[in-house]
Amino acid sequence: MPDCTSGECGGLQLAKELDIADYIIAPDPSAARLTRAVEGVDQTGEISRINVVEERPLTIFLNAQEIVTAMTIGDYPEYLALGFLRNQGMLLPDDRINGVDYDDDLETVVVRTERQTSYEDKLKKKTRTSGCAVGTVFGDMMEGLEDVRLPVTPVRTSWLYALAATINRTPSLYLQAGAIHGTVLCHEDRPLVYMEDVGRHNAVDKIAGWMLQTGTGAEDKILYTTGRLTSEMVIKTAMMGIPVLASRSGFTAWGVEIAQQVGLTLIGRMRGQRFVCLAGDERLLRDVDPASVPVEERKHRRKSSEA
Amino acid sequence: MPDCTSGECGGLQLAKELDIADYIIAPDPSAARLTRAVEGVDQTGEISRINVVEERPLTIFLNAQEIVTAMTIGDYPEYLALGFLRNQGMLLPDDRINGVDYDDDLETVVVRTERQTSYEDKLKKKTRTSGCAVGTVFGDMMEGLEDVRLPVTPVRTSWLYALAATINRTPSLYLQAGAIHGTVLCHEDRPLVYMEDVGRHNAVDKIAGWMLQTGTGAEDKILYTTGRLTSEMVIKTAMMGIPVLASRSGFTAWGVEIAQQVGLTLIGRMRGQRFVCLAGDERLLRDVDPASVPVEERKHRRKSSEA
Repeated sequence: MPDCTSGECGGLQLAKELDIADYIIAPDPSAARLTRAVEGVDQTGEISRINVVEERPLTIFLNAQEIVTAMTIGDYPEYLALGFLRNQGMLLPDDRINGVDYDDDLETVVVRTERQTSYEDKLKKKTRTSGCAVGTVFGDMMEGLEDVRLPVTPVRTSWLYALAATINRTPSLYLQAGAIHGTVLCHEDRPLVYMEDVGRHNAVDKIAGWMLQTGTGAEDKILYTTGRLTSEMVIKTAMMGIPVLASRSGFTAWGVEIAQQVGLTLIGRMRGQRFVCLAGDERLLRDVDPASVPVEERKHRRKSSEA
Repeated sequence: MPDCTSGECGGLQLAKELDIADYIIAPDPSAARLTRAVEGVDQTGEISRINVVEERPLTIFLNAQEIVTAMTIGDYPEYLALGFLRNQGMLLPDDRINGVDYDDDLETVVVRTERQTSYEDKLKKKTRTSGCAVGTVFGDMMEGLEDVRLPVTPVRTSWLYALAATINRTPSLYLQAGAIHGTVLCHEDRPLVYMEDVGRHNAVDKIAGWMLQTGTGAEDKILYTTGRLTSEMVIKTAMMGIPVLASRSGFTAWGVEIAQQVGLTLIGRMRGQRFVCLAGDERLLRDVDPASVPVEERKHRRKSSEA
């Protein structure tokens, strides 16, 4: 393993041109449905028109059963429904999905499976997870987690720096309207699928739905999120089988504990040259001299308006 | 109403000394139970010890019925339980509370009322609210909201600036460990009760519980939050009867709509001299020249690690 802490090895080469075409799915800040211009008044009494993100209900059904109503920006409702049900353990890995029907007017998605499903009991037990809002998972939050041992996937620090730089420069709803979170599924130094939502959790579920739909494997992926590394985010990532979770943001103690237990490489407080690895540091390959990493340009720093 | 947009009126006088004693409840960043020092490795390969916030389950019972398990930092469990049940409409304004029993070992709080309660049906319907995590309210999220008309309470911009300055300088878990949200109940230019939690929603519920326990009126209060002004935050504030909601952070379209509908004064993107008012601007008294407001010191800016 190269040791770059002495600054002996090469500097980081970042792509000069940001190529959005590299994404399989990139944010679409221009999509009319996702933001609205509202009129306000600023501190000087001047009229101020600002773009704010939309927030709509989406009710998810599994066959005949109403499972939940999600508040979402409203893009990719099918992925959100599939990913939510999968991450809740209500869709099983071998479930045959006969249909995913989205109704724009009714604001519903119905996921139909060959298997007959009923989760009355599971829906009774609720856990409010951590996050900026009251969070809930159905059933036992830790259910199935004790069996999870993530693949030992080495991570080059050059990938992490390149991902952060690309993702921060990618045009997004966040950069346009704020008050939204982003989560990005990545492979090595390439961001693949960048989802945003008012609920960060929805962004993760949309990624899970996309992975399920496309049959994309998790073992060689990295999940990058703008949000905090709470127990909920760590559990979701682990249950999705993704071995690496990175964030600009901070940690909670229980999130760190779970990451260590399941073998998740957990990197937080990623800003410019800096980061802290609180789990799985032995899987990090420090192949680039941190001092060679460009400091973030001011305009690419995330403001706390996302909080 | 004074017009300070011309810069004619006086500058803002901020208290030179920050007096924590002015708070009825202030954060206690030194409380051993709330944070833990964990060891990690930084970008240079150096061992790095950082403080992270704790995150514990707390199961809330209303009489014999288990309602929910909340992930919380664990301070003020009684206030959290009371406020959650009140904000969910499961405790009625005239309910006689016979006891609030917290068990540290079992991590449970039982709230006992004279009235017999049962919310089986209500617990069946769930709405995931917006926020950094999947959020849920039980029953119809908008239930009871159509009747809400908040009192017309004038707000001086000098109060808002003074509150922001004081709150940002107040020692907090956020400043010590990050990855946590704060919500503060205020009267005019004085912050009264400053609650923090991994779930911002918990912080609001703890404030609601404190108000219920102490019989504190809402009509002349201001709620200041570090988080986004989503529909959920706006609805909670309105249901609590608080006529003013201010935040450093951004808006969602539906949050703005609801604020306008219920007569909530909604101020966001508050940073130093700047803010935007998206609802109730006619209730704002611009009694200070924004140009006289000191720009935020770098160290008091909230980093995105809170996100």
